[in-house]
Amino acid sequence: MPIITLTTDFGLSDGYVGIMKGVILGICPQATLVDLTHEIPPQNVRQAAYVLKAATPYYPPGTIHVVVVDPGVGGARRPLAIQTPNALFIGPDNGVFTPILLQETLYRKPPAIVHLDQPRYWLATVSHTFHGRDIFAPVAAHLANGVSLSALGTQITDAVVLNVPRPARQPGGSIAGEVIYVDRFGNLITNIPAAWLPPEGKWVFEIRQKRINGLSPNYAAVPTGSLLAIVSSEETLEIAQREGSAARSLGTGAGEPVIAFRVSG
Amino acid sequence: MPIITLTTDFGLSDGYVGIMKGVILGICPQATLVDLTHEIPPQNVRQAAYVLKAATPYYPPGTIHVVVVDPGVGGARRPLAIQTPNALFIGPDNGVFTPILLQETLYRKPPAIVHLDQPRYWLATVSHTFHGRDIFAPVAAHLANGVSLSALGTQITDAVVLNVPRPARQPGGSIAGEVIYVDRFGNLITNIPAAWLPPEGKWVFEIRQKRINGLSPNYAAVPTGSLLAIVSSEETLEIAQREGSAARSLGTGAGEPVIAFRVSG
Amino acid sequence: MPIITLTTDFGLSDGYVGIMKGVILGICPQATLVDLTHEIPPQNVRQAAYVLKAATPYYPPGTIHVVVVDPGVGGARRPLAIQTPNALFIGPDNGVFTPILLQETLYRKPPAIVHLDQPRYWLATVSHTFHGRDIFAPVAAHLANGVSLSALGTQITDAVVLNVPRPARQPGGSIAGEVIYVDRFGNLITNIPAAWLPPEGKWVFEIRQKRINGLSPNYAAVPTGSLLAIVSSEETLEIAQREGSAARSLGTGAGEPVIAFRVSG
Repeated sequence: MPIITLTTDFGLSDGYVGIMKGVILGICPQATLVDLTHEIPPQNVRQAAYVLKAATPYYPPGTIHVVVVDPGVGGARRPLAIQTPNALFIGPDNGVFTPILLQETLYRKPPAIVHLDQPRYWLATVSHTFHGRDIFAPVAAHLANGVSLSALGTQITDAVVLNVPRPARQPGGSIAGEVIYVDRFGNLITNIPAAWLPPEGKWVFEIRQKRINGLSPNYAAVPTGSLLAIVSSEETLEIAQREGSAARSLGTGAGEPVIAFRVSG
Repeated sequence: MPIITLTTDFGLSDGYVGIMKGVILGICPQATLVDLTHEIPPQNVRQAAYVLKAATPYYPPGTIHVVVVDPGVGGARRPLAIQTPNALFIGPDNGVFTPILLQETLYRKPPAIVHLDQPRYWLATVSHTFHGRDIFAPVAAHLANGVSLSALGTQITDAVVLNVPRPARQPGGSIAGEVIYVDRFGNLITNIPAAWLPPEGKWVFEIRQKRINGLSPNYAAVPTGSLLAIVSSEETLEIAQREGSAARSLGTGAGEPVIAFRVSG
Repeated sequence: MPIITLTTDFGLSDGYVGIMKGVILGICPQATLVDLTHEIPPQNVRQAAYVLKAATPYYPPGTIHVVVVDPGVGGARRPLAIQTPNALFIGPDNGVFTPILLQETLYRKPPAIVHLDQPRYWLATVSHTFHGRDIFAPVAAHLANGVSLSALGTQITDAVVLNVPRPARQPGGSIAGEVIYVDRFGNLITNIPAAWLPPEGKWVFEIRQKRINGLSPNYAAVPTGSLLAIVSSEETLEIAQREGSAARSLGTGAGEPVIAFRVSG
């Protein structure tokens, strides 16, 4: 039962996701299909990249992850498949796989990347607007059926990699990062690793000229409505509000600078 | 592993869809359940009909498609099952199957239609408000288990067929059509077949007093923010805006007239 | 093929649900995963309790229902598993299982409840913010694999039970209840059992100073736009509007008082 996950900006109102699932099940009836999300804001490649990086480590080895956030559909951007030791990734060459490529290259070795250029594994007719249906879904299903990566296209090494905002250690010991994701609860997930915030010393976090003292052990450790800092489920600094939305309270979102510094105590 | 798809206007907040899936899995545990969409606007039978027509051709033969957009639930409208050479359809007799019925009748032969009137294939108690749970879900599961169409009810030939807006070729060679669907990206899908727009000659498309020159090969072929005309994934004329919403920019939606005409070039 | 359902307030935009599914499929690849809903309003334990009570009776025996509406995550609230004759429930001890516990205790006998305190059935690292991923998902998968309830933790008898608004028979024969759920159609589901409204005599229903005469056999029995009273799919009194939203028309929602009384006729 190969697992195929789907991540798109299609939303759920139009049936586009359902069409992709029909194509996959027609080629690989025993596939287990799972939605990561279809609510990526239209054409927001960076947000798709974030969700993909957060979710895919929790899937068993061999899982196939299909991503269709694809403003360049029908144009010059290449369709790709990427194989890492743990997973296969299929989608457009627009940077959506940046965190996967960086992580693999940093910690292991550059993964195998293939430019999908073998139409025999696509639908017979390929539209200009819906490669999720015509290319990515059938390729995922053929991979699930055991077709090898090399049969699907030509190996490449120059996949698009986006610039990623990185946290920085400043002179004097403070840390400068930024909000990189806002979730449905309005929690502000930053790029400051929790590992950079050792428990000794008193940390203060500054965002939008507000200061938050220390890391809370859980949301319920502060009064209802209060802002708090906490280690996120991604092991980074998160700014949240108990039973509220920090994003709304602070009027901010992705890109907002966050500073962490220590006070003598 | 029979496939059962679900299309409703239930939304995803209430658990109604989850209830239908429980009923189905209780009767046919090995069914593969797929959501086409549950975000049909409440009681919008025409939109459900469009989504159904677009999605179902991509499913393998024998797939069972359940549709519950059912303003007449509990009243006089009949519950139906329809068998075509490729698929089975289950839902209310309110016109939602119009494109399926027209297509089959035009290109093949009238499909078998059954009025579901055999309560032994329903839940023991049938409510006045939720036939998706009480009739359509259990009937789908019994069909998936191999119960024959004829066991489920009485054959009929007078299923409801809605009027469908049709494109027209005008004197002078222009084509008059209309927008029939707006997707989540704000793309305006029209009923003008791409096959009516041969590449020789220069086509101009007019909508809301704006003119668009020619068919673009892909969204990225025009500058960001520009309107464009393109062949949709349904092989019809689509009016779109690069990385924007044509529906919002033009302030329009389903029903809007669109004219295609040729200029001498 | 054990069935595992998921009910959360995570929404579908962030990939949190997809992460839980990855964890479950990694431990129990043959699980059939079904979403009840992920659109519970953030931290609305009562709404989750209602959806759970409405949906779970339609699932086959042995189904595992996971609920993650968990404002107290990471704090003192206990993670629980509950076994009833028909199902297993997993989630936080915050009252979300109130209807299940009351029903079982009233009609059968108190169900087995376990405080999940055996970390060997959790992920190796447990965050402060996402026990859906780190505790509830892996425990559900281990249960699906056949691990016994007693292996997962320590039996308890003091699970949190919330106060539930109850309908009351008044002197003079009227019934006082309230709206307990508003669905996506704007239908107002009350806590007045249909069994308390015998057909003899003429019932009048009063809400927001409007009066509705009698129970309609179906939505289509009144003119478009009219308010009506009907027996809900939960066998309770429902106030609805034909092809409209009673919640919007009446400007009300959960908690609104509803009176039923008989007029001599």
